[in-house]
Amino acid sequence: MPIPPTLTWLPPPDGPAVRMIDQTRLPGELVLLNCRTIDQLCVAIVRLSVRGAPAIGCAAGLGLALAAYLSESKDVEHLLDELRQAQAALAATRPTAVNLFWALERVMGVAEAAAPAGIEALRDRVLAEAQAIVAEDLETCMAIGRHGAPLLPDEGNVLTHCNAGALACAGYGTAEGVMRAAVATGKKLHIWADETRPLLQGARLTAWELMQEGIPVTVICDNMAGALMAQGRVDCVLVGADRIAANGDVANKIGTYSVAVLARAHGIPFYVAAPLSTLDRATPTGAQIRIEERPGEEISLVAGRLREPITPAGAQIYNPAFDVTPAELVTAIITEVGVFRAPYGEW
Amino acid sequence: MPIPPTLTWLPPPDGPAVRMIDQTRLPGELVLLNCRTIDQLCVAIVRLSVRGAPAIGCAAGLGLALAAYLSESKDVEHLLDELRQAQAALAATRPTAVNLFWALERVMGVAEAAAPAGIEALRDRVLAEAQAIVAEDLETCMAIGRHGAPLLPDEGNVLTHCNAGALACAGYGTAEGVMRAAVATGKKLHIWADETRPLLQGARLTAWELMQEGIPVTVICDNMAGALMAQGRVDCVLVGADRIAANGDVANKIGTYSVAVLARAHGIPFYVAAPLSTLDRATPTGAQIRIEERPGEEISLVAGRLREPITPAGAQIYNPAFDVTPAELVTAIITEVGVFRAPYGEW
Repeated sequence: MPIPPTLTWLPPPDGPAVRMIDQTRLPGELVLLNCRTIDQLCVAIVRLSVRGAPAIGCAAGLGLALAAYLSESKDVEHLLDELRQAQAALAATRPTAVNLFWALERVMGVAEAAAPAGIEALRDRVLAEAQAIVAEDLETCMAIGRHGAPLLPDEGNVLTHCNAGALACAGYGTAEGVMRAAVATGKKLHIWADETRPLLQGARLTAWELMQEGIPVTVICDNMAGALMAQGRVDCVLVGADRIAANGDVANKIGTYSVAVLARAHGIPFYVAAPLSTLDRATPTGAQIRIEERPGEEISLVAGRLREPITPAGAQIYNPAFDVTPAELVTAIITEVGVFRAPYGEW
Repeated sequence: MPIPPTLTWLPPPDGPAVRMIDQTRLPGELVLLNCRTIDQLCVAIVRLSVRGAPAIGCAAGLGLALAAYLSESKDVEHLLDELRQAQAALAATRPTAVNLFWALERVMGVAEAAAPAGIEALRDRVLAEAQAIVAEDLETCMAIGRHGAPLLPDEGNVLTHCNAGALACAGYGTAEGVMRAAVATGKKLHIWADETRPLLQGARLTAWELMQEGIPVTVICDNMAGALMAQGRVDCVLVGADRIAANGDVANKIGTYSVAVLARAHGIPFYVAAPLSTLDRATPTGAQIRIEERPGEEISLVAGRLREPITPAGAQIYNPAFDVTPAELVTAIITEVGVFRAPYGEW
């Protein structure tokens, strides 16, 4: 079954709204959520109704279009102020994925350039730019797929962590896009999907999306990856990224670093697939990437699915959302313009 | 608050029964479960109401006493047959922990030796031997604690996986026993408890038991251990074992191997604490240890706590309960007779 678009613009009269798959409801239910205000959109991003670095970028861009359409301002300067407020609110939702800031700056640049042309033109151009980000993201993912597919084995097992699939992007996916492209060229792949605690994006989203596509997938707990590698049952690791520092250090979902260390210890290639919009040239190394820390209840209440916590009352819990994999553990980074390997000076 | 005994013998008239803390109910409720038949006891072991290699050994020993007390046989040979049936049923519950087979053989040996003395004497000696196993296990854990405590830092962070605590033994614990002993000598420890998917023994049991003892503990997801090590926030790893091969390879809860690889990659000591009853001299290396595979629902229904699975309907799931850490990744094995390091020829 084809997967609906992760994010779309819902125009008036039904909108304006940013319409998205509510990923917190998957895999039980496929529900579309209409965010009709910036507040609703911010909540959707914080709650991870939409998640994945490229998809967050698309959501932020569409968010500025939403702010422009919601505005009743008659004055371009005032409208720009409203857009800047929306930008600030959206930028405050999550700190690690750089695509969020990249998309906001890109659309705000267009808004400022369009200001002399008046309110109507500004609004149109903001929406067009946001929609361009969405369309480009889809094309980018397909290009990442084309560049990455040759790296995967003709037949074998690929381990992935979290979800870097259609649901993490406008569609198609980065890491999962490479899997899709490889399968489309006739490669016979089986995917090991780390469940990805605490929020279970692997068990919920990666498994769902690969099953929709008919790509064989088996869910494991995160702590099983090493044992599978020791048994020779993992041919390569392929993950996405939330931010890539200039030196090639990769911030991605918590647990990615452990998988990278395990892959190195077993001589297994570790690939990262990400659009260039995830590359943060202003951040020299991973040490400067701010790592979001999220509430302990995500762990103790199992992504909101329990009423009674799994931990004792009053237990201390630590819940960092991301970690940094140093460039030296990354075999290659697959982008829409090609495959990069260390040293990453020239990109 | 002191923790009640993990397992006790409940004599007539309230018994005969094997009484245990029902560990599936922790940390929400502290419930004592009376197993009045061998079937009930087997179910309790399979369901992990009692778990942990030493505790399973104690349960099996007490199980043979239960079989002896339940028997209405007037004939010693017939009673021995009933005990052998109980032994077979108990031995079939779980394949990996060697203490199960060790305890069954030890008690059956006593039963066979006592046969000439008649039914009453046989029954008494079987119970005495089972109770001796329980009492020795507690002493053994305390000796492990004394031998292991000097290995821990005077002040620092210890990471553990699963539960090798009082709840995994007759009391006190193996890995957690070393922590207890170290704290008792004035060491200031903070414990990182891997939650230990799928059945969450770390989040549920290790956190509960250390909090009862007032030892500072923080729960993390299994996939966070590597990031903590990279930050320099883990001074050593300390775990239990379900079976140790003659060459020092260690079978323990799934995920232990990944932690061992991570510890090695970060230059962090990796200690195993276990009684000699966990050492299986008949098994040359870890490759010969049978690894239990358990139902996928333990993962998808989060240890029975959910009605709706976290995975899509029909998803493939792989759920091995243990993995093998090769001896070369183990810094030392702490036993009741002292600390062993590779090569393990002379133990």
